[in-house]
Amino acid sequence: MTSTDRTTIASISTPPGAGGIGIVRISGPHALALLKKVFRPAAHHCPYESHRVYYGMIVNPTTARPLDEVLAVYMRGPRSYTREDVVEISGHGGYLVLQSILELLLACGAELAQPGEFTKRAFLNGRIDLTQAEAVIDILSARTKKGVDLALEQMSGALYRSVESIRQQLVQIKALLEVALDFPEEDVEIVDRDTLLTTLRTEVFIPLRRLIDSGNQGRIIREGATVVIVGRPNVGKSSLLNTLLQQERALVTPLPGTTRDTIEEYLDLNGLPIRLIDTAGIRENADEIEQLGIRRAHESINRADLVLFLIDGSRELSEEDRHLFRTVDRKPLLVVINKSDLPQALQVRDESVMLARAIAISARHHNGLDVLRQQLFERLTGGKEQWQEEGCAPNLRQKVALEHAEQSLLRFRQGIENEVEHDLVTVDLSEALNQLGEIVGETTSDDVLDRIFNQFCLGK
Amino acid sequence: MTSTDRTTIASISTPPGAGGIGIVRISGPHALALLKKVFRPAAHHCPYESHRVYYGMIVNPTTARPLDEVLAVYMRGPRSYTREDVVEISGHGGYLVLQSILELLLACGAELAQPGEFTKRAFLNGRIDLTQAEAVIDILSARTKKGVDLALEQMSGALYRSVESIRQQLVQIKALLEVALDFPEEDVEIVDRDTLLTTLRTEVFIPLRRLIDSGNQGRIIREGATVVIVGRPNVGKSSLLNTLLQQERALVTPLPGTTRDTIEEYLDLNGLPIRLIDTAGIRENADEIEQLGIRRAHESINRADLVLFLIDGSRELSEEDRHLFRTVDRKPLLVVINKSDLPQALQVRDESVMLARAIAISARHHNGLDVLRQQLFERLTGGKEQWQEEGCAPNLRQKVALEHAEQSLLRFRQGIENEVEHDLVTVDLSEALNQLGEIVGETTSDDVLDRIFNQFCLGK
Repeated sequence: MTSTDRTTIASISTPPGAGGIGIVRISGPHALALLKKVFRPAAHHCPYESHRVYYGMIVNPTTARPLDEVLAVYMRGPRSYTREDVVEISGHGGYLVLQSILELLLACGAELAQPGEFTKRAFLNGRIDLTQAEAVIDILSARTKKGVDLALEQMSGALYRSVESIRQQLVQIKALLEVALDFPEEDVEIVDRDTLLTTLRTEVFIPLRRLIDSGNQGRIIREGATVVIVGRPNVGKSSLLNTLLQQERALVTPLPGTTRDTIEEYLDLNGLPIRLIDTAGIRENADEIEQLGIRRAHESINRADLVLFLIDGSRELSEEDRHLFRTVDRKPLLVVINKSDLPQALQVRDESVMLARAIAISARHHNGLDVLRQQLFERLTGGKEQWQEEGCAPNLRQKVALEHAEQSLLRFRQGIENEVEHDLVTVDLSEALNQLGEIVGETTSDDVLDRIFNQFCLGK
Repeated sequence: MTSTDRTTIASISTPPGAGGIGIVRISGPHALALLKKVFRPAAHHCPYESHRVYYGMIVNPTTARPLDEVLAVYMRGPRSYTREDVVEISGHGGYLVLQSILELLLACGAELAQPGEFTKRAFLNGRIDLTQAEAVIDILSARTKKGVDLALEQMSGALYRSVESIRQQLVQIKALLEVALDFPEEDVEIVDRDTLLTTLRTEVFIPLRRLIDSGNQGRIIREGATVVIVGRPNVGKSSLLNTLLQQERALVTPLPGTTRDTIEEYLDLNGLPIRLIDTAGIRENADEIEQLGIRRAHESINRADLVLFLIDGSRELSEEDRHLFRTVDRKPLLVVINKSDLPQALQVRDESVMLARAIAISARHHNGLDVLRQQLFERLTGGKEQWQEEGCAPNLRQKVALEHAEQSLLRFRQGIENEVEHDLVTVDLSEALNQLGEIVGETTSDDVLDRIFNQFCLGK
């Protein structure tokens, strides 16, 4: 579909509610003609230059009824959001007024834009790829400043470039294999198996896996993380929670599920909203009521993105500590030795696995907390540097496609290793290419496209 | 205060919430300098022409961190909303992103705009008078399309012109009186009393009163009206309610107090939201429970803007009808004779006062309802023509000032009639001039100005 086949769409592009400015946006071949129908410029001469703002009134051409005093701007395609002709009418912001303007445009022949349709056209017209379109959603719904940064990176095409570089490698490999198929009797081996396997490993599997792994960090950066403080009773869990909260401003976030079945507070960690959960101290010989608290603690551990495992440094490590450590050591973990202000009784050497990278703090005296916060942040985000360098963190849809591609490529590699016929292994290769194409929008089905753009708000 | 004395202010000018476009607005002498600090145009050459839209990124100049992809436009004063230099930065609409941009501008030296401060500057810089500034609030908060029309009329200066024309008459009269004071010994009478009194009546009192009277209609047009259906039992009140609601689309309005202590529904009457209340039939020999309903009916009558008094045309008028009529005949009233489909038993001639302008309908057969709706609308709005011709309906503040001016002028007129010394009567004249000056913003105190502009939302 080319731009000229399309209808001209219109929508209110600012949120409903009280605001100083409200905008109605039009996109499509008749955008300028529609503007001319309803706009009465204040100046005598109005040449409707592209990208120039004109002041005037919106007037119903049939009834001569004025609707609003506005600024109007026409942006000739392809120098516009959608690459089509775009018009933005900016009025006083009353929602009833904006609706009247929109209704007038619809009466003059515009069609009501679907949610995300402006951005969908930007994608269909080739201004942005699908990962960039999805970044537009992320930037709108970002809950953290880091999430915004990530969305901006992705909007600039970072994920697209990473996926494309893998895809280009696979396209080349496929071309080579096809040449080999066309000349089966050639003596010279066109495809050198060892070279191919090396290329696959360094240029395909490693970057692919890195992308998949960054997906989880992306989720945390976008939505925040759950951190659970775990430890046996009296190691200082609650005082750590209080200290962390006192130092930082308690944050009200729009995250769902703020019900406090255990002690939960929000912590703003360098722009990352952390749901910090203080659990009941876990020990074995607990009474029935305490058991309930301990069961809840285990539930919290299950849904945690990271466990802060707290030990009392002024005492020797107990069997209880060791037992508890074994129940959490499969989770991402940060071991923290509290009460560094007291004489230390811990034998660090004996517990090298557990205590190797432990952080010593004093929750009471606020010692070591900066290091703790820094470590916490780095563990959760993979370190600011890392993801900024990568510049992308796939969302769930993208991650699933990457994983499918990885599966196909593993089959492909096995085929190569086992010297399976080339025309059989290329099936797996083609599948991987398709799956990567789905991410950038080259082979994405209409259903998936609809699902993606339906997540947008109206007017975007 | 001139434009150059002022600070440069900035604010988010679109409502919070999900939208396709979000705008940060800047106004003041440093608007362009601030834009240049934070904006990286995509094009190599960016001359920042006035009223031209440029595409680029907002970037923190200290950290080089990009904040959003935006369109930016600079509007050189006085060709702008505030008459100062104005910049509008239009981003992807994420509220967090808009906040980052605003924070960056504040860090670069802008001041956070107070609610209504952009419009206040437009007023202080003489682009609009105070009635036009107040119309901006009305257009933002209008609940009905008619309310929008009214606000637009007022924004175009209709109320200003009406008040100014009265003011100019008074200024001329005052000048004449002052001349007469300066030449007390002149034989010729400079001020002809009869001419003056005629001028006062036709050019001052009549238009002043018309403005005051239109204030109430203005409120109804802006906020809608309460209409109560009253009549003795079994005249067809509920079927009238149902018929009106079935014909029209039941409207959900943002009006407060939708609790239904009696049967209440909303009706969209040519764009006017009507709160239609069906009351218990009122009769004298009612039991205790019925009495409660009747008491509520009387309460509803008290807060009604108009009473629909319903009579059964197929029966003779009863003493109950007449009694009930006397309890409501001081309210704005529309008498409706129902059951026009049945043989009529009413003796219209005998009840000329009550039935003179009655409308005959059949609620069951939907006869006469268009006439009823038309009459209802005209009674509530004073007829569309009327207020469109006047082009203004003062709000409460303006109405009170008009009433005060009228009081002062009545004293002034009495002084003239009683041939009181000119220097004494001019005191009343000056007071009236002051009161009219308060409406257009010439003599309005800072307190009142603050109160007016505090009603605005942020960013307007």
